Amino acid sequence: MGGIVVQNIDRASAEVIDGLARCGVATVHEAQGRTGLLASYLRPIYPGARIAGSAVTISAPPGDNWMVHVAIEQLRPGDILLLAPTSPCEDGYFGDLLATSAQARGCRGLVIDAGVRDVRDLAEMQFPVWSKAIFAQGTVKNTLGSVNVPVVCAGAAVQPGDVIVADDDGVCVVPRGAAEAVLAAALAREANEGAKRATLASGVLGLDMYKMRERLEQEGLKYV
Amino acid sequence: MGGIVVQNIDRASAEVIDGLARCGVATVHEAQGRTGLLASYLRPIYPGARIAGSAVTISAPPGDNWMVHVAIEQLRPGDILLLAPTSPCEDGYFGDLLATSAQARGCRGLVIDAGVRDVRDLAEMQFPVWSKAIFAQGTVKNTLGSVNVPVVCAGAAVQPGDVIVADDDGVCVVPRGAAEAVLAAALAREANEGAKRATLASGVLGLDMYKMRERLEQEGLKYV
Amino acid sequence: MGGIVVQNIDRASAEVIDGLARCGVATVHEAQGRTGLLASYLRPIYPGARIAGSAVTISAPPGDNWMVHVAIEQLRPGDILLLAPTSPCEDGYFGDLLATSAQARGCRGLVIDAGVRDVRDLAEMQFPVWSKAIFAQGTVKNTLGSVNVPVVCAGAAVQPGDVIVADDDGVCVVPRGAAEAVLAAALAREANEGAKRATLASGVLGLDMYKMRERLEQEGLKYV
Amino acid sequence: MGGIVVQNIDRASAEVIDGLARCGVATVHEAQGRTGLLASYLRPIYPGARIAGSAVTISAPPGDNWMVHVAIEQLRPGDILLLAPTSPCEDGYFGDLLATSAQARGCRGLVIDAGVRDVRDLAEMQFPVWSKAIFAQGTVKNTLGSVNVPVVCAGAAVQPGDVIVADDDGVCVVPRGAAEAVLAAALAREANEGAKRATLASGVLGLDMYKMRERLEQEGLKYV
Amino acid sequence: MGGIVVQNIDRASAEVIDGLARCGVATVHEAQGRTGLLASYLRPIYPGARIAGSAVTISAPPGDNWMVHVAIEQLRPGDILLLAPTSPCEDGYFGDLLATSAQARGCRGLVIDAGVRDVRDLAEMQFPVWSKAIFAQGTVKNTLGSVNVPVVCAGAAVQPGDVIVADDDGVCVVPRGAAEAVLAAALAREANEGAKRATLASGVLGLDMYKMRERLEQEGLKYV
Amino acid sequence: MGGIVVQNIDRASAEVIDGLARCGVATVHEAQGRTGLLASYLRPIYPGARIAGSAVTISAPPGDNWMVHVAIEQLRPGDILLLAPTSPCEDGYFGDLLATSAQARGCRGLVIDAGVRDVRDLAEMQFPVWSKAIFAQGTVKNTLGSVNVPVVCAGAAVQPGDVIVADDDGVCVVPRGAAEAVLAAALAREANEGAKRATLASGVLGLDMYKMRERLEQEGLKYV
Repeated sequence: MGGIVVQNIDRASAEVIDGLARCGVATVHEAQGRTGLLASYLRPIYPGARIAGSAVTISAPPGDNWMVHVAIEQLRPGDILLLAPTSPCEDGYFGDLLATSAQARGCRGLVIDAGVRDVRDLAEMQFPVWSKAIFAQGTVKNTLGSVNVPVVCAGAAVQPGDVIVADDDGVCVVPRGAAEAVLAAALAREANEGAKRATLASGVLGLDMYKMRERLEQEGLKYV
Repeated sequence: MGGIVVQNIDRASAEVIDGLARCGVATVHEAQGRTGLLASYLRPIYPGARIAGSAVTISAPPGDNWMVHVAIEQLRPGDILLLAPTSPCEDGYFGDLLATSAQARGCRGLVIDAGVRDVRDLAEMQFPVWSKAIFAQGTVKNTLGSVNVPVVCAGAAVQPGDVIVADDDGVCVVPRGAAEAVLAAALAREANEGAKRATLASGVLGLDMYKMRERLEQEGLKYV
Repeated sequence: MGGIVVQNIDRASAEVIDGLARCGVATVHEAQGRTGLLASYLRPIYPGARIAGSAVTISAPPGDNWMVHVAIEQLRPGDILLLAPTSPCEDGYFGDLLATSAQARGCRGLVIDAGVRDVRDLAEMQFPVWSKAIFAQGTVKNTLGSVNVPVVCAGAAVQPGDVIVADDDGVCVVPRGAAEAVLAAALAREANEGAKRATLASGVLGLDMYKMRERLEQEGLKYV
Repeated sequence: MGGIVVQNIDRASAEVIDGLARCGVATVHEAQGRTGLLASYLRPIYPGARIAGSAVTISAPPGDNWMVHVAIEQLRPGDILLLAPTSPCEDGYFGDLLATSAQARGCRGLVIDAGVRDVRDLAEMQFPVWSKAIFAQGTVKNTLGSVNVPVVCAGAAVQPGDVIVADDDGVCVVPRGAAEAVLAAALAREANEGAKRATLASGVLGLDMYKMRERLEQEGLKYV
Repeated sequence: MGGIVVQNIDRASAEVIDGLARCGVATVHEAQGRTGLLASYLRPIYPGARIAGSAVTISAPPGDNWMVHVAIEQLRPGDILLLAPTSPCEDGYFGDLLATSAQARGCRGLVIDAGVRDVRDLAEMQFPVWSKAIFAQGTVKNTLGSVNVPVVCAGAAVQPGDVIVADDDGVCVVPRGAAEAVLAAALAREANEGAKRATLASGVLGLDMYKMRERLEQEGLKYV
Repeated sequence: MGGIVVQNIDRASAEVIDGLARCGVATVHEAQGRTGLLASYLRPIYPGARIAGSAVTISAPPGDNWMVHVAIEQLRPGDILLLAPTSPCEDGYFGDLLATSAQARGCRGLVIDAGVRDVRDLAEMQFPVWSKAIFAQGTVKNTLGSVNVPVVCAGAAVQPGDVIVADDDGVCVVPRGAAEAVLAAALAREANEGAKRATLASGVLGLDMYKMRERLEQEGLKYV
């Protein structure tokens, strides 16, 4: 029932992580074969942030944020805190004091399958959070959880050190070992998208650009 | 099970459509007898847009956006795409490439009882979307649906060519044949509202302005 | 089944109310022993508002906003309208006309466990609303409810005259009789938070600042 | 805003209706091209009922069951009451007294996109109901709605006189004009299913019975 | 933040409580003016139970069932445990061991705005539970709550010693001081219902029995 | 994007699996440190089933059940099918024909984070299913998924060959490698529970049996 802190985790290279941030969630998700998305109910507390970082994971009991303090010590610059409660909970595990502490250690943001509070302060600090709820409900510090263990967060399996990418579209996890290849695929996809966008903007239809008409006819589509 | 594209649909006049856009959802909904609202879970991806247009409807299988490409060919300037999945789904059927193509054909926006992605790009393009979810989940192009057939979208029955009005309050459908009369009623209502607003702003109570006191007393309201 | 309007309710002092507004929801909630939060599904229609005021409560039937008109007459400057339907409902009980009337009487905002409409107008008027839904659905004026009676709103028990505090974190109710003591506790907490924030910003860990290491070890936390 | 009762509606033949009841929801839904299902949140109040009947539709305001009384007069033996509130509501519009009255007129059951109460009595009476909620919340009789007008109920468009089929799988609507053809397709499907069931029960795989292996290989399925 | 156990609470008389149980939730709710219902998401773990008893209330932290043990000591024969978590939670606070202990003290059942487990055992023991979820998730015993304090449970305010009535329709709370009068009103209502039921069963319409036709005509109902 | 079938997976021993079934979900979940529960929204289609088996996992696109046919070939006697859609979906992937085929291969049941249909037939066949929805919505067979790959199902990470335990309390996954140890812990717990149950049934309080009084006093619990 918890009680473990893994201190040394492997991380992807900073270049790869930053590259994934620039690509964004939708592109990265496509580039790794349409896998890795966290549930759509995770929403950013303010629009416009686009980040990536290495996951420092927290498995926490419902309504108990003790392990957040423990996890902050494990943060390195460029990391992202990712918290999964052991059962569904929307309490406000995290607010401006914890954000101040995390930001002092170079943390880029928080992904939490629960609640967050002090959101006006967090927006002013430019500390981005993707959460299930905005809820001021306080938590206690009475029961152990674990830090840097595998978790399931908002429906996605996350290992400590995996790369988390988050923007206005939501949150995606990239397995650490696959990060470099996914970045390559994402960049290729992006290059490709620029040309497609220009073609479509000129009025060419996707039906023609993707040569879909023949297959639609074969499948039996009828124009009436 | 789908497979039909209706190519020629009737549309309301541009003047009526634009008039309805200016009135907005709440007024139009009242003007047509409190009918036609789509469910409140459809939310705009960014605030401030207020549009109206003729519905080009899409009935699409869950997780399959093939028919969006087919529908874009059917768009005329001033139209709005409206997608209803054949069963509940929140996948991201639509992103910036499709928006680029739709916008190139004069499309004013998208109403989708499912998910959308690339929302930062869509906001920058000023392509408004009202959706059930923001979700980067990719879709396939394997199964036929239909275009310009009657659908039920977010709880409202929509015929192709009906007028869709959408703003920060949500989305409302006006049957094409009723659009002119609804606009007239909406404009009358608006004129009326200006006077009411001024009266209320001056401190006159609704109780007096609407002469409610007598009926409240008859019903038995007690002041203690 | 309703039908009562209580005309004279006690209110907390304006200084206490305004002090609570400055402290904000999260601090006030902590200061009164982590009680009084309304459910997290109540969300502000626009970001940035932070208000407090005395609750003028409304118990209204589903889809019937007659009592809102009755309640507006009971408003005094600095009050907040708080509406709880007698069964779950998301209809748009309130829009710009009612807001104009309420604002003319000095009302600071609305908390409603139901829907609201005309939200663009309300934002322009700077009339803040915390609601369960944004929904243009119209209501009728056919059935009595009550004004200034005890209600349960979004999971919290509210007495007329209680202090409502609302900001981007949500909504909290402070019992009128406790308001002064809660303000004192909140101010003490705030003073305390400034020092904590500075310490954490300097890089000191919460583990050390709160002296948690010993207790974590006692509980059996293992670093591996 | 309501206020209409259509007295003479067309119905499908009793033989067709009873045939559809015997086929059940899943088969009928498939037989009409996978259309017509009401949302899965409509659940039977007790298991085992399987009925079909002609829809007598009710459009009712939230929390107001006046029109149920009006609709009961329009019932003929073999009919099914189908109620759609004009906005989302889970109040208990219907209980044992109304069921007694409806049953006295030959009504086979109720489909309601809202709540029902007295469910123990209804089960004892063998009056089946498919509802969104079981909720004792009372309703009023103050505002008109309509009877036998087109409605959208739990996401499906229903015309008065359409055939409603309901069983433990949920509820399906069959357009009156299509009922005979759908029954023929459903019966063909059922005949077909008996043979398939026997084959599968003998251990033959669907992969072989449906000859799927070649297409799976073409699509690139890899066995490892 | 909790930490109180009130040991002596007043209860309604056993005769009144048992009378309310016989009337059932829907009748009692009507008899007290359509107030007091708990939310419809509270469902019985097995059908057919109909109980009433005095509420021994528990305010418990999320995921912590320590106070259930404390509350059981406060039970007297005929009581009902009623648990409200301090923030939304669906953990399984209660299972067959606690039920054994509660039943040994004469407890009639549990109403819990959270989860329950061991439901097969509970059904065999005939220990009825109305809960928000069935969920085996374990809880801890680390944080204090309170027993026999006022709570809001599933949207209804409950005082310790209030009468709880629960059956297949859900759960209703009757304020202790009103219990006798509510019982009288409920019995009157029941007597009345028998006659109405017989009349309706004979085929007389509610429209005639309740003399609704004139008022419907006045309101403008049109038969077409 | 799918397209893999792993043919040889390791399974726990039949004795261990059957032992876990006898212990049931709540006990197994406790015995492995309160981990492994699937979300509470997975409910059995009929009460009373209690099974365990080795997971044959299916990752399937929304609305496409092609892979179920592929997975059935991989079943061995004693297995359980476990399906996770690649994005949220409640379509009816599975009905009586597939159950007939699965049962012919010795399959003990289905756990599906989506919908199921033909539930009356499935109950008669005694083929238990734990599902998110009962929904007759048909699916297609157009897009590949994978069989016997790791999945996240209803919030829990499942490897092919893990032991699935399911009963009226829900569903729990036990990692294959831990199954023997978890069974031992579960049996120890059960033995222990028998004694506890007898003690509690005799009227001894948990407060005394677990010796909680001293710690409660230390924490500051006050009896008033």
